[in-house]
Amino acid sequence: MINKASSTPNSPIFDIRHKRLAEALKIAGINALALNPGPSLIYLTGLHFHLMERPIVAIFIPGQPITIILPELETAKLTGLPYPLNAFTYNDNPATWQDIFRQAGLSAKIEKSRVGVEPGSFRVLELRYLEAVVPYSQIVSAENAIASLRICKDAEEISAMRKAVEIAQNALQATLSLIRIGMAEKEIAAELILQLLRAGTHANMPFTPIVSSGPNSANPHALPSNRMLSPGDLLVIDWGASYDGYVSDLTRTFAVGKVDPELEKIYDIVKQANAAGRITGRPGIPAGDVDRAARTIIDSAGYGKYFTHRTGHGIGIEGHEEPYMYAANQLSLTPGMTFTVEPGIYLPDYNGVRIEDDVVITADGAESLSNFSREFMSIG
Amino acid sequence: MINKASSTPNSPIFDIRHKRLAEALKIAGINALALNPGPSLIYLTGLHFHLMERPIVAIFIPGQPITIILPELETAKLTGLPYPLNAFTYNDNPATWQDIFRQAGLSAKIEKSRVGVEPGSFRVLELRYLEAVVPYSQIVSAENAIASLRICKDAEEISAMRKAVEIAQNALQATLSLIRIGMAEKEIAAELILQLLRAGTHANMPFTPIVSSGPNSANPHALPSNRMLSPGDLLVIDWGASYDGYVSDLTRTFAVGKVDPELEKIYDIVKQANAAGRITGRPGIPAGDVDRAARTIIDSAGYGKYFTHRTGHGIGIEGHEEPYMYAANQLSLTPGMTFTVEPGIYLPDYNGVRIEDDVVITADGAESLSNFSREFMSIG
Repeated sequence: MINKASSTPNSPIFDIRHKRLAEALKIAGINALALNPGPSLIYLTGLHFHLMERPIVAIFIPGQPITIILPELETAKLTGLPYPLNAFTYNDNPATWQDIFRQAGLSAKIEKSRVGVEPGSFRVLELRYLEAVVPYSQIVSAENAIASLRICKDAEEISAMRKAVEIAQNALQATLSLIRIGMAEKEIAAELILQLLRAGTHANMPFTPIVSSGPNSANPHALPSNRMLSPGDLLVIDWGASYDGYVSDLTRTFAVGKVDPELEKIYDIVKQANAAGRITGRPGIPAGDVDRAARTIIDSAGYGKYFTHRTGHGIGIEGHEEPYMYAANQLSLTPGMTFTVEPGIYLPDYNGVRIEDDVVITADGAESLSNFSREFMSIG
Repeated sequence: MINKASSTPNSPIFDIRHKRLAEALKIAGINALALNPGPSLIYLTGLHFHLMERPIVAIFIPGQPITIILPELETAKLTGLPYPLNAFTYNDNPATWQDIFRQAGLSAKIEKSRVGVEPGSFRVLELRYLEAVVPYSQIVSAENAIASLRICKDAEEISAMRKAVEIAQNALQATLSLIRIGMAEKEIAAELILQLLRAGTHANMPFTPIVSSGPNSANPHALPSNRMLSPGDLLVIDWGASYDGYVSDLTRTFAVGKVDPELEKIYDIVKQANAAGRITGRPGIPAGDVDRAARTIIDSAGYGKYFTHRTGHGIGIEGHEEPYMYAANQLSLTPGMTFTVEPGIYLPDYNGVRIEDDVVITADGAESLSNFSREFMSIG
């Protein structure tokens, strides 16, 4: 065990977050929180680890030092942390790992507790080690407790997101002038990545850009392919940047040369739906209202069955996080919540349109962090 | 439920892999395999999905069509698959998802089975849905069964890996001439990413390059920082490319200007350890022998305690997969196995050295897929 005492005088940001965590766990009736590497661990500790075959688990129990179990080779990251932490390290022989977890569990005194995990990131790998450490505990979802911590962004977080939006917008602007008929989707994606890096994105980008054309644009999650741009195509570009740990996620749709009037029509419908979604949010209304505002416009125009996904998702440290914008979501919007508004119409085997912006709830409404032109532009 | 009949005449590669899966599951005593998005799903189906908050699970039962549960908006990816598949889709309201999983479970008849999952990628999110679908089943690790499928690469897979190595080597060559004293680690990483894309890597790179200098180089998993290169530093670059679904993972260490003689000494020891690791592998010997060959050299030179990790890991579709090169690993090496050889010496708070190559086991020995110079070069 390595005992890491507080070496820097104090760290208000982690102090504040640990106190808020203690409150959120109390409300949820959870005694201990077990996290694996990822955004919530970064939020609560500043510690970045790759998620790999070696299990890394940090255990938070209000009023105790954080306990972390991790490979020996990762301990260099623990120097100078501004909060107390007990580290248990293991070597590369997996046969020895369970015992280290057991020692950590004994030291942290988490027997017979309700132990929370994040279902969307905690893996069976970590779960089985944790179960053996706390055989009499109940392992429950801490999803809501964690979401309540991270869901409202402070001014510093929003400022990082504005910068991530600005980088993304500048990168697309630089890329557009280089796009030509005959270019492959993959080439456009590579060019956009180059421009994102030049514009200042962190090298760990939130996701690989989606560049989809013609029939591929009718697939909301298409991967860039070797398909080449042809006149008459729609071109969907869904891209984002990362700055200071926060991300952006935007989409614009373009015409390649001249397109079919029906495609102009669906573009206009999606543009109206995007506008409706962007202006609807305000404190106190359910998240579902944002979805309904955008969806009603597409439904009324007769394209409802081609809008196959929710209107948006929360965004912050992760590209997808709480709050999710689906009609049934009763969650009350609150200042500082940040989410995407991204309605779309996808005509199978033909073409698709999506227009996506990043929005923040303000004291009395919603503000779009992104302002890249939403006019229907023809390129190539 | 969408019934997708076989539309292309046949697909030998998936046929072969599904038959090998059936055998591997039989040997492991597993009746059904449940996979979430990731490398094994790609290997067995060719289907790429983002891993996100919406659970996607594919269930493989030998002799039955594949069952997949997924969001409605992902169904476009299922057209024209060369094998039978039953798809169950859900919309964006999470309250409805469990019922769709239940329907899929009833249809696939997986009650009272031993259901295998991959602990390193299956999340608590998918596990809880799966547990409710198969309440009388035992959910076990299918790690070994899956590893036995993927661990030996065929000629086509090795050829893709050679190309991924070539792209990585060309990109580093192009980057080296641009590195100057005073550049930040992050700038070097961004330049290397640009060069990787130009050299032809897939935009989904296996990992963000590690560029670490001076004291940061003593942390094997450092992230590129704002630290600027200074004369006397060691500079560790750990980078890789992706080609046709297969990845490379290499490391080279450089001197920045003139360095302390002890750093020249540890470089030379690591270089010898790397050579020993590269030539030791051959069919029939335990994987652990590769680790021991490299480690003995570092131990004998008196730096054993500064070599804080195993000698390597398997590589293929994933950057880290079976087989793992640690001393206690008794797994017998077999032609087609591919892994890294990456010994290192890390002097805390001072400097570190790592030299990493990608190796394949041949009929009578081992071949290094990478050949970038291992001479101690000074840059800047």
